[in-house]
Amino acid sequence: MQHDRPPIDPSLGQTSLGQMSLGTAVMARLDDLARFSADADGLTRLYLTPAHAGAARQVAAWMEEAGMSTRLDAAATVVGRYEAATPSAPTLLLGSHIDTVRHAGRYDGNLGVVTAIAAVKVLHEAGERLPFAVEVLAFGDEEGVRFPVTLTGSRALAGLVRPDALACCDRDGVSLAQALRDFGCDPDGVSGLARDPAAVLGYLEVHIEQGPVLEEAELPVGIVTAIAGASRLVVTVEGRAGHAGTVPMGLRHDALAAAAEMVLAIEAEAKANPDLVATVGQIEVPRGAVNVIPALTRFSLDLRSPSDAVRHAALAHLHAAFDAIAERRGVRVSAQGSYDEPAVACAPGLMDAVADGISRLGLRPLSLASGAGHDGLALAGLCPIGMIFVRCAGGLSHSPAESVTAADVDVATRLLVDVLRHLRPESLRPESLARLSL
Amino acid sequence: MQHDRPPIDPSLGQTSLGQMSLGTAVMARLDDLARFSADADGLTRLYLTPAHAGAARQVAAWMEEAGMSTRLDAAATVVGRYEAATPSAPTLLLGSHIDTVRHAGRYDGNLGVVTAIAAVKVLHEAGERLPFAVEVLAFGDEEGVRFPVTLTGSRALAGLVRPDALACCDRDGVSLAQALRDFGCDPDGVSGLARDPAAVLGYLEVHIEQGPVLEEAELPVGIVTAIAGASRLVVTVEGRAGHAGTVPMGLRHDALAAAAEMVLAIEAEAKANPDLVATVGQIEVPRGAVNVIPALTRFSLDLRSPSDAVRHAALAHLHAAFDAIAERRGVRVSAQGSYDEPAVACAPGLMDAVADGISRLGLRPLSLASGAGHDGLALAGLCPIGMIFVRCAGGLSHSPAESVTAADVDVATRLLVDVLRHLRPESLRPESLARLSL
Repeated sequence: MQHDRPPIDPSLGQTSLGQMSLGTAVMARLDDLARFSADADGLTRLYLTPAHAGAARQVAAWMEEAGMSTRLDAAATVVGRYEAATPSAPTLLLGSHIDTVRHAGRYDGNLGVVTAIAAVKVLHEAGERLPFAVEVLAFGDEEGVRFPVTLTGSRALAGLVRPDALACCDRDGVSLAQALRDFGCDPDGVSGLARDPAAVLGYLEVHIEQGPVLEEAELPVGIVTAIAGASRLVVTVEGRAGHAGTVPMGLRHDALAAAAEMVLAIEAEAKANPDLVATVGQIEVPRGAVNVIPALTRFSLDLRSPSDAVRHAALAHLHAAFDAIAERRGVRVSAQGSYDEPAVACAPGLMDAVADGISRLGLRPLSLASGAGHDGLALAGLCPIGMIFVRCAGGLSHSPAESVTAADVDVATRLLVDVLRHLRPESLRPESLARLSL
Repeated sequence: MQHDRPPIDPSLGQTSLGQMSLGTAVMARLDDLARFSADADGLTRLYLTPAHAGAARQVAAWMEEAGMSTRLDAAATVVGRYEAATPSAPTLLLGSHIDTVRHAGRYDGNLGVVTAIAAVKVLHEAGERLPFAVEVLAFGDEEGVRFPVTLTGSRALAGLVRPDALACCDRDGVSLAQALRDFGCDPDGVSGLARDPAAVLGYLEVHIEQGPVLEEAELPVGIVTAIAGASRLVVTVEGRAGHAGTVPMGLRHDALAAAAEMVLAIEAEAKANPDLVATVGQIEVPRGAVNVIPALTRFSLDLRSPSDAVRHAALAHLHAAFDAIAERRGVRVSAQGSYDEPAVACAPGLMDAVADGISRLGLRPLSLASGAGHDGLALAGLCPIGMIFVRCAGGLSHSPAESVTAADVDVATRLLVDVLRHLRPESLRPESLARLSL
């Protein structure tokens, strides 16, 4: 399927290679994979589309080449399996997603799949078997762009796909069940994908950071501590309209001025707490005019924290601040929550394993939370999860300008190989039952 | 044209009537006039539309009844003339406008025309002639809603209609010249409407306040000192987009948070100066999303003051404040002015005449500036101007809920009669050349 590029560097997987070679090879594959796109000049690869099918076939081919048996499961996840040294051993899940947002970059998701395949290939070509099987998963629905559901592939493994999810439709009225059938999958098989927790050791994902922390710290990789919980609200401020020229300042009840004060209160609350980020991404003065004092202002609030307690305390502080601002200004405020997702902690055993690997590479192990959601949110319902973040330029993601360096990808891939080689299954088992309470 | 209401109270104009009668009669006429509307359930009367034609005919009929000769001038202003005691006497202009915004109230503009006619009728029915002629003007283009020009009728009298104005078109592509022709006016005659300043004594307009100052002061009428000058700007703040979950607060360059700070700086600047009002009526985060840090925010700024010096100083302060906020936050700010109209002062002679009349009615003479624009802005290019403001409920205008009381309208009409009776032409002439410098 890749006719007009030279084949992948045949040196991929030879552990005796120089430091840059694994990274360079992975970067070349990511460039190849980016060709499977609905757009010619960007990367758009929605769940169960022809672009997804092309990418899935390519990924499966690379998995086979890396010594894995492959299959497409009922939720259209490409599963590549590298057997353990012993047949009864548990399985460690690796991977990420190969779907993208519209007009995306080529690293979000894809990087985790391609590095995982590259790591297994290193083991395969060295003839190494581990005390656990490794499965590389290429999920197809992490971004949730096409259907009003998301994480379908990872939810299925955790037995968390809601029965009505298969009936939901995309913008063209095609149901998820029909789209799965058209893709060659059996939607009736989705409910049977749930794994036995006893057979799964954990899930470890490599992903671009999508933030600037590693760049600021000048580190190629970092250890993810948790996937942040999130609250989303719409805040509505009702004031009193008036003529911009005729109502003295002291007699105004300006909804936008009140909202501006709330926006700054939100920022101050988040700045005062290192475990909190808060964003007002949208604001509007409905039917606003240049010469009319705003009667109504609406804005969105997105609040995230790796600690649910921190997030809920911040929400309570902000509600009180909004009320105080509204009362002082003689306006009304109301807030409607649209979303409240708890945080998911990464497993200490996996965090330690990654940190040890980073130290062995001679790097400083930096821990950071993930503010964005990932398949680990769903898989935490099945097994211990862990993530390795890779530095990306400017923290940018969901953009064609998304960028990582071959050197950083090389570190991430070597780190993954190293973690696989050093991971002791018994170090993970206890934590699969005791999830971190942050 | 008014079939389904009883005729106007025949006692209108008999000065021996009780205090309420003039006000009640004017209110009844305003209700009648409100029927000339493009909407059934609101009041919408745009320039040179059938609703405007109907209102113009009704106003002309009332003028005739009040002893005035009438004509429709080339700019579609209804002109009613009540001759002076001597033929060579100068003319005092009264009036306001009979066009409205969309979904308007019935008092903005119309009140000034109907009270002026009622005042002349009082003189006419008492057989009184003044040492100056009185012309009542019913302008048709004060709101500037239909065409991208405004104040066409009053500008024409001051010789201020730009040559290209007649070629401008409404949303349907009808030119102002064509619309005038369709209305029965000769657009070629507009340039000939300019009056000889030596023959015009001044212009005095009754108008609803459109603000809450008189209501707060518990006074029915007030003396306008000036029509505020205005600046309008669009301020653009450029920050850096980022994922709402992954970029720590300290690394953000949030365009909306910066804009919120600017909105509050604007409010503080205006609150610190009693001669200034400032309004941010519109704000947007183009392509904003709940989970994306705003890269761009745009907002409008409307700044008004009766003093151009105060307004320009405030603008300078705000530009400096914007720059300081932008620099501190690592964002870029630019402001583009779309409008800069100087303030127009009312003539001391007319202000004194109105204040004396208010005192004679036993009321406290309160002076206040007009934050809204009026036909006086254009007529100040021809003659001394003055305005009488009438209290309106809640300061509300440009709304069907616009409201005045018959008692206040009665005071305003009696005040106008009183001012006409006491006005000495020689008290105005000097100021026609010496405009107040605020």
